[in-house]
Amino acid sequence: MNYRMTLYIIGQIVKIVGIILILPITVGLIYHEYDAIYAFGIPMAILVVLGFLLTFKKPKNKSVFSLEGFVSVAAAWILVSLIGSLPFVISGDIPNYFDALFETVSGFTTTGATILSDIESLSRSGLFWRAFTHWLGGMGILVLVLAVMSSNDTRTMHMMRAECAGPKVGRLVTKSSDSARILYGIYITLTVLEMIMLLLGGMPLYDSIIHACSSAGTGGFSIYSDSIAHYNSLYIEMVITVFVLLFGINFNLYYFLLIKKFSQVFKNEELRVYLGLVASATLLITISVTKMYGGFFHALRKAFFMVSSTITSTGFATADITKWPAFSQSLLIMLMFVGSCAGSTGGGMKISRWIILVKNGLKEIKYVMNPRAVVSVKMDGKPVEQDVVRGVTAYASLFVCIMMASTLLVSLNGGYSVQESASGVITCMNNIGFGLGQFGPCGGFGDLNSFSKVVLSLDMLIGRLEIYPIFLIFAVRAK
Amino acid sequence: MNYRMTLYIIGQIVKIVGIILILPITVGLIYHEYDAIYAFGIPMAILVVLGFLLTFKKPKNKSVFSLEGFVSVAAAWILVSLIGSLPFVISGDIPNYFDALFETVSGFTTTGATILSDIESLSRSGLFWRAFTHWLGGMGILVLVLAVMSSNDTRTMHMMRAECAGPKVGRLVTKSSDSARILYGIYITLTVLEMIMLLLGGMPLYDSIIHACSSAGTGGFSIYSDSIAHYNSLYIEMVITVFVLLFGINFNLYYFLLIKKFSQVFKNEELRVYLGLVASATLLITISVTKMYGGFFHALRKAFFMVSSTITSTGFATADITKWPAFSQSLLIMLMFVGSCAGSTGGGMKISRWIILVKNGLKEIKYVMNPRAVVSVKMDGKPVEQDVVRGVTAYASLFVCIMMASTLLVSLNGGYSVQESASGVITCMNNIGFGLGQFGPCGGFGDLNSFSKVVLSLDMLIGRLEIYPIFLIFAVRAK
Repeated sequence: MNYRMTLYIIGQIVKIVGIILILPITVGLIYHEYDAIYAFGIPMAILVVLGFLLTFKKPKNKSVFSLEGFVSVAAAWILVSLIGSLPFVISGDIPNYFDALFETVSGFTTTGATILSDIESLSRSGLFWRAFTHWLGGMGILVLVLAVMSSNDTRTMHMMRAECAGPKVGRLVTKSSDSARILYGIYITLTVLEMIMLLLGGMPLYDSIIHACSSAGTGGFSIYSDSIAHYNSLYIEMVITVFVLLFGINFNLYYFLLIKKFSQVFKNEELRVYLGLVASATLLITISVTKMYGGFFHALRKAFFMVSSTITSTGFATADITKWPAFSQSLLIMLMFVGSCAGSTGGGMKISRWIILVKNGLKEIKYVMNPRAVVSVKMDGKPVEQDVVRGVTAYASLFVCIMMASTLLVSLNGGYSVQESASGVITCMNNIGFGLGQFGPCGGFGDLNSFSKVVLSLDMLIGRLEIYPIFLIFAVRAK
Repeated sequence: MNYRMTLYIIGQIVKIVGIILILPITVGLIYHEYDAIYAFGIPMAILVVLGFLLTFKKPKNKSVFSLEGFVSVAAAWILVSLIGSLPFVISGDIPNYFDALFETVSGFTTTGATILSDIESLSRSGLFWRAFTHWLGGMGILVLVLAVMSSNDTRTMHMMRAECAGPKVGRLVTKSSDSARILYGIYITLTVLEMIMLLLGGMPLYDSIIHACSSAGTGGFSIYSDSIAHYNSLYIEMVITVFVLLFGINFNLYYFLLIKKFSQVFKNEELRVYLGLVASATLLITISVTKMYGGFFHALRKAFFMVSSTITSTGFATADITKWPAFSQSLLIMLMFVGSCAGSTGGGMKISRWIILVKNGLKEIKYVMNPRAVVSVKMDGKPVEQDVVRGVTAYASLFVCIMMASTLLVSLNGGYSVQESASGVITCMNNIGFGLGQFGPCGGFGDLNSFSKVVLSLDMLIGRLEIYPIFLIFAVRAK
C-alpha cells in the first residue's frame, strides 16, 4: 500500500471538513451564540492543522488503487467523526462524549438515529451542524474533496468506489474530478430547490435549510422531537416526500437527463423497481392502516410519507409506526433492507443488489431444472458480469453475518427484546434512523450503554461505506 | 420431463407409506383403541390403492434426472401429508383438517411445531403416528423407498439430492440403493440404541419409542405438554441431548467410521465447526442464565439441552426460553439459522453452507484488497468448486427472500408482533418447532388462522426439501 499517498488523501479530507466548520460558526454568530466560536473553533483548528501537516508535502508516488481509496476514506470518516463530535461536548449540547460520537456518526452516515430526548434544547449552531453532517455524508466527503481539488489524475475514479453506494460505480465522464463536480452540482441544485419549495410553504429559513440538508443526505435529523409532524402541513409533507424520493434515485440518471439521454433513464430497471416498490408498499400499508386513521386519504398521506422516508433510509416521521399493525411494521422493516437506488444518497442494501440477488436465485431454480441450459443474470437488458454477481452475493452474506453478530452484541445490553435489538441494528446498518419498539420514531438510542453505542456507530459506518473500507482499515493495520 | 417415471416413483413412495400405516394400527390394537382400525385403515387403503395404480405398469423409459427426482419427491411429500393427516381427523384427535395437516407436515418435515394445546388428550396410536412421521421424514421417504426397492439403476443417485440435505450429496457407494440401505442401517441402529438407553433410564417402553423416533428425525414432538422437562431426569436429558447431537452429524461420517476411514472424520471441517458452535453457545448461554437458575451447573444443564435441541432443529424443551435474557434468545435464533450438518436428519441452512458463505465473504474482502490475487474458497483442505459456491449463495438469497415474504404473509394474521411472526416463520422454515413470544416452547400454533397455517406448512416443506423441489413442482405445472 502507498502509505504516503493514503495519508495525503486523509489530510485533504480532514482539511476540507475543518474549513467547512466556518459554517456552524457563522450560524452561531447570527444567533448570538458566541460559545460556538470555541465549540467549533477548537475542532476546526485541530482538523485544519492536522490536514496541513498531512498534505504539506505532496508524495512523489501518486499511484492510488482501490485499497488506498478504501483505507483513506474509512480512516478519514472515523477521524472526522471523532473530531466532529467535539463541538457538541464543548458547547454542552451533548455533554457525554460517546453520545456525541454516536450522534455525529449517525449524522455523517445519514442514519438519523438520535440519542437526544429533548432536541429543542440544543443550540442553533449545534442543530445546524447536526443536520449539515447529513448533507456532507450524503454525497460523500471524499467526493467533495475530488470536486474541489484540481486533479488531472484519471485513476482516482476507483477511489470513489469507497463512498459511492451500489454494486458498481458508473463512470460519468473520464476524469473523476469532473464526475465529482457533476454529482455535487446536481446535489446542490436539488438541495437549494427543496429549500425554496419549503420556504414557499411557509417554513422559516433556518428550518428550511436544516430540512433540505437532512432530506438531501436522506438523513432524518430534524429540529423537533415530533419531526415533520410538527408542521402539520400537507404541503410540507409532500415536498419532503417527493424530494427524499428524488434523492433516493441514482444521480447518474439526472446526468443522463441533463445530457438528454432519456432512453437510459426510461429503461433503468432499478428505477422502475424502486417506484414500483414505493407505490405498492404505500398502497398495502394504506389499506392496513385505514381503520386506524379513520379514512383512506389520511391513511394514504401517512403511509406515503413513511414508505418514502423508510425506503430512502431518511427516517423522518409523521406517525408512530410502533402502533401500526404488524403487517405494516414488517413491510417497513423489509423496505429498510431493500434500500434505495445505487449511486444515490440513500442507504440500505440497494435495489440493484436485490435485483441481482433475486434474479440469481431464480436462475439457480432454472439451472436445477435443466443443468444444461445456459442462463445468465440480466439487468437493463444486458447480462451482468459474473464478477458483479459474485461480489453482490458475497456482500449480502457479509451484511447478514455482521447484522447477526451486531444483534448479539447489542442484545447484551439488556432491557430490550430480540426484536428491538435486531431492529436497532437493522436501522443503523441500513442508515434509516428508527426501528421498532423502544427504537421507534419517538424513542431514542440514548438509554443504551456506551458499548452498544459504539457497536451501533460501527454498524452505521459499515452500512454507509458498504462494509469493505471499515474491514480493510483493520486488515492493513494487522499487516 | 419423464412424466410416467415421475408418477411411478410417486406411486412407490405412496405405497410404502401406506403399508407403514400398519404400525399405528398395531399400536392401536395393543392399547385397545379399536377406532384406530378405521382411522388408519381408510388412509392406508387410499395410499395403497393409489400406489398400486401408479406402479401397475413399469414405464419403459426409466431415465430419471434430478428434475424427475425433485418433482416426484415434492409431489409425494405433499400427497403423503394430505392423506397422512386424515387419521387425526377420522379419530377425532384433531378434528379440524387444516390443524391436522399442519401437524402432519410438521411431523414429516421434522419441525415439531404443534397446534395442540392439550397433547395428553390424544390417543396412543395418534401420538405414535405423530412421532413416527418424524422418523420417516428425518432420513427421507424416497431414501427409504430406494433402500427397499431392488434397483440396478445407478442413476437414481441424483434423485436422492431432493431429500438429502446440504449443498452437495456425497456418494457413499456406486449404487444408490446400497447407499440408501447403509444410511437407513445406521439410522435404525442409532434409533434403537437411543431407545435402549432411554429404557435403561426408567422411561416406559412406549415413551422410549416415541422419543427415540422423535430425536432420530430431530423432530421434537413429545407426548407431554412440558416436553422432556416432564421426566425431570438428568440422565434422560443427557441421553437425548447426546443423541440429537449425533443425529445432527453427517451420516456419511458414520459410514467412514464403519469402514475405518478415521482421517475423513477428523479432518471434517463441518463437524469441528458444529461441535465448536455447540460448546461456545452452551457456555455463553450458561453464563447468561446462571443468575436465573441460581447456579452454574443447573444453568449449564438447561443451556446444553436447549442449544443441542435448537442447533439440531429438534425442538424439545426443558426450559421456557421466552423468559431468558434477550442475548440468549438472539443466540438461539441464530443457531436456528445455522442448523446442523449436511447429510444429517437436522434442519436449518446447514453448517457447510454457512462455512462456504462466510469464506466466500472473506474471500471477497481479500479480493477487494488485492484484485489480482487469486483466492479460492476451501473446505476440508480442498478448494470448493465454483458451481457449489454459486449454488450456496443463490440458495441463501432464495431462503432469505422466502422468509421475508412468509413473514409478511403471517403478519397479516394479526395479534402477533413482528418478532413473533418472524420467529414463527424462522422456526418453521428451519424445521425447529419453537420460536419466541407466543410461539415459545410452551405456546402453540393453534391460534393462527388457516391461511397462516397453510403458509407455514409450505415453509416447513420448503425448508425440509431445501426449496427447489417445491418450486419445481409449480414450474412443471405451469409449462
